[in-house]
Amino acid sequence: MKIAVFAGSFDPFTLAHLDLVNRSLSLFDKVVIGIGVNSAKQGLMSYQEREDVISAIFAAEDRVEVQQFKGLTVQFCDQVRSTYLLRGLRNTNDFEFENAIAQNNLIMAPHVETFFLMAKSGLAHISSTIVRDIFQHGGDISNLVPADVSAFLYRND
Amino acid sequence: MKIAVFAGSFDPFTLAHLDLVNRSLSLFDKVVIGIGVNSAKQGLMSYQEREDVISAIFAAEDRVEVQQFKGLTVQFCDQVRSTYLLRGLRNTNDFEFENAIAQNNLIMAPHVETFFLMAKSGLAHISSTIVRDIFQHGGDISNLVPADVSAFLYRND
Amino acid sequence: MKIAVFAGSFDPFTLAHLDLVNRSLSLFDKVVIGIGVNSAKQGLMSYQEREDVISAIFAAEDRVEVQQFKGLTVQFCDQVRSTYLLRGLRNTNDFEFENAIAQNNLIMAPHVETFFLMAKSGLAHISSTIVRDIFQHGGDISNLVPADVSAFLYRND
Amino acid sequence: MKIAVFAGSFDPFTLAHLDLVNRSLSLFDKVVIGIGVNSAKQGLMSYQEREDVISAIFAAEDRVEVQQFKGLTVQFCDQVRSTYLLRGLRNTNDFEFENAIAQNNLIMAPHVETFFLMAKSGLAHISSTIVRDIFQHGGDISNLVPADVSAFLYRND
Amino acid sequence: MKIAVFAGSFDPFTLAHLDLVNRSLSLFDKVVIGIGVNSAKQGLMSYQEREDVISAIFAAEDRVEVQQFKGLTVQFCDQVRSTYLLRGLRNTNDFEFENAIAQNNLIMAPHVETFFLMAKSGLAHISSTIVRDIFQHGGDISNLVPADVSAFLYRND
Amino acid sequence: MKIAVFAGSFDPFTLAHLDLVNRSLSLFDKVVIGIGVNSAKQGLMSYQEREDVISAIFAAEDRVEVQQFKGLTVQFCDQVRSTYLLRGLRNTNDFEFENAIAQNNLIMAPHVETFFLMAKSGLAHISSTIVRDIFQHGGDISNLVPADVSAFLYRND
Repeated sequence: MKIAVFAGSFDPFTLAHLDLVNRSLSLFDKVVIGIGVNSAKQGLMSYQEREDVISAIFAAEDRVEVQQFKGLTVQFCDQVRSTYLLRGLRNTNDFEFENAIAQNNLIMAPHVETFFLMAKSGLAHISSTIVRDIFQHGGDISNLVPADVSAFLYRND
Repeated sequence: MKIAVFAGSFDPFTLAHLDLVNRSLSLFDKVVIGIGVNSAKQGLMSYQEREDVISAIFAAEDRVEVQQFKGLTVQFCDQVRSTYLLRGLRNTNDFEFENAIAQNNLIMAPHVETFFLMAKSGLAHISSTIVRDIFQHGGDISNLVPADVSAFLYRND
Repeated sequence: MKIAVFAGSFDPFTLAHLDLVNRSLSLFDKVVIGIGVNSAKQGLMSYQEREDVISAIFAAEDRVEVQQFKGLTVQFCDQVRSTYLLRGLRNTNDFEFENAIAQNNLIMAPHVETFFLMAKSGLAHISSTIVRDIFQHGGDISNLVPADVSAFLYRND
Repeated sequence: MKIAVFAGSFDPFTLAHLDLVNRSLSLFDKVVIGIGVNSAKQGLMSYQEREDVISAIFAAEDRVEVQQFKGLTVQFCDQVRSTYLLRGLRNTNDFEFENAIAQNNLIMAPHVETFFLMAKSGLAHISSTIVRDIFQHGGDISNLVPADVSAFLYRND
Repeated sequence: MKIAVFAGSFDPFTLAHLDLVNRSLSLFDKVVIGIGVNSAKQGLMSYQEREDVISAIFAAEDRVEVQQFKGLTVQFCDQVRSTYLLRGLRNTNDFEFENAIAQNNLIMAPHVETFFLMAKSGLAHISSTIVRDIFQHGGDISNLVPADVSAFLYRND
Repeated sequence: MKIAVFAGSFDPFTLAHLDLVNRSLSLFDKVVIGIGVNSAKQGLMSYQEREDVISAIFAAEDRVEVQQFKGLTVQFCDQVRSTYLLRGLRNTNDFEFENAIAQNNLIMAPHVETFFLMAKSGLAHISSTIVRDIFQHGGDISNLVPADVSAFLYRND
């Protein structure tokens, strides 16, 4: 079984994340969405809230699992028996950042290979950072995140 | 069966190409190396020579096939029943070029998804263009191409 | 009256070009589309064909004019009494290319200022080069160019 | 009347900012410099000091106004009846950042269009961050900021 | 005597830093490694620890000196009678950052020229930030830093 | 004696080239300007004309020599007993191109190290390609090239 890990902080999970997971399911048998826990950072949503909302989004898709994790992403891959990392690329800044990470992962864990998808044209402008910024200034984020995320955020606002 | 197409002009096939194919075999069941035929261009090697040498390189790997093709890459995917394209990324110039191609392919052929691997650190400086340039000026290309390729080129020089 | 020049080779004019012109009309009183004539290059469409098709596209918009020109773009600006250049930016390759041109124009013709719009998300993957490539390999370009352009190209194919 | 908003934190306002505003006045009837207030950040200058110094710089130019604002930039545009944003681009990092913002603004507020100017050659190395860094280490910033800004900073040092 | 300053925070000093210093010794008579002291930042290693470990690494090379410094890098150059800065470039993000710094330094201190080396292929993925991240998550950093650094970090872990 | 090679096609030699050579003389004892001869390309100036004009520019500087060469740049370094290559960087496109070349040179000729200078702010928009384009369209190039070059070109126009 080919299991990919899609790791991130997902604060919040966006339509661009959703598109990447859905497109990758054409190739992988299972995708484990790993929410990296970093106790130093206070987010828009708590880690448990992120897990709950992302799980709700994929409630009907049993090939997607959601978990929180601590430590290195490649260690999390070992825990869930994944040998593939899935990452998205939006622009050249992403590229330079992701390239350095991928090279280091390849050295630390040569049995884990990172596969990239391009963010789909029309979604590449979406980032969790921009969503947070728009939300916190009272702007409309309903075109940027799945319905479950905007429902959660507006309910708790 | 998950079949990926790895298309290019491969004039010549380099160690960076070899690394991408080998790493992708962890995920794909079969990789079809497609040599795009563009009658306008005179190359270092003829199309048939490229096919022969690449076939020799993968003689022991029956999960790799080599073919010449004309037309759009996504049309070639349909011919060989592939729904995945494999591409490598070396730097931001590659990224911008590949991103535009991938977006267009996704619109023309939504059933074909492009997966990218980063060129491995230590191989990202290799391109067929640079190999040709060094070879034609009498430099040593043995660290840049598989042994079958350098044997062919030096034999015919 | 604020007149902008939008110069290019437009071989062919694409939906991304159309979007830029339309968006710029919010600011400029008139946009002159200048088709740069470079006798060395053989195109998909002749210069006269490009002028005719682009004129047809904007037949209902009298604030847009179409002309062929030779020489430097800033010289053409003087001819049509424009003091603004309009350019689109799709990605970092465009940026580096356009930046050098804009700096040189500013030195040669300080009375002409270049204003840039970002290619709209969902259109940034479109270039005339890619359209030509897809068209010449028999692919479908109807999502990439205005209807007048695809009608012309398929009629003459 | 064509009113553009030029928004930023301007801590401090630099010669590169000054050049952008002056060049944009060739096109816009009025430019409103909007100082975005972000209570979380402690700056080199207070928001009121920034407003006062920038107002002094443009004392003789009644087509430039200076205001502080909170919230999204596109909301500020509505407040001052502006339908244009003015932004400068220095390099590819700026480009990727600005592109994402511009796409999101276009979706949130399609009636507000963002026009970009390239930072003029010879000024593109100037950023408020670098000015603050040089100033705080005792370096000379008089070639980087308008005279009003350096007068203010050295008086309060 | 041609003395170059190689300045940074070196938290920690990596194999990529080591490679740059060693390669630059082909050209410079002496390299002064300047550890920039920024009291606001808490690091993985203290400034004194960095100085001690880097000094140990170059114990056998009397053409390399190690010092802490405060203030602008070009001021430090004057203190150690250096008229050259040495910098490494790994990718386009480095390039844009370094370019702005170099231009500003050239204006502030025209007698100090910055020379750049490309990070060697196979080392360009290494950054102090990534080393800290891997180390703090319990990953193996022994392929990323000199033996003296990993010995120090694991001893103090 | 520290001898650097500054290689290029120099069709024509620009003010940006001049600035790089002059700035590098602070570090190198001698700079050999190598004009790479590529018989396939027809230029604005012949190879001999380029050699003559560049020699005239540096007539008063006996630390600069001008030569034509064929073959690989690192082979030319060996011929003139140089162990340093000098290159300029204007933008990220230059960076990606130069990085690949430098890595390959380092592998082919580890005894030759490439040192880079950033194009000086205010000169980074100049390229031989742009100079040729402006000149051939009748524009003014006198701010882009040394006086000897514009004198030559206008005399022969």
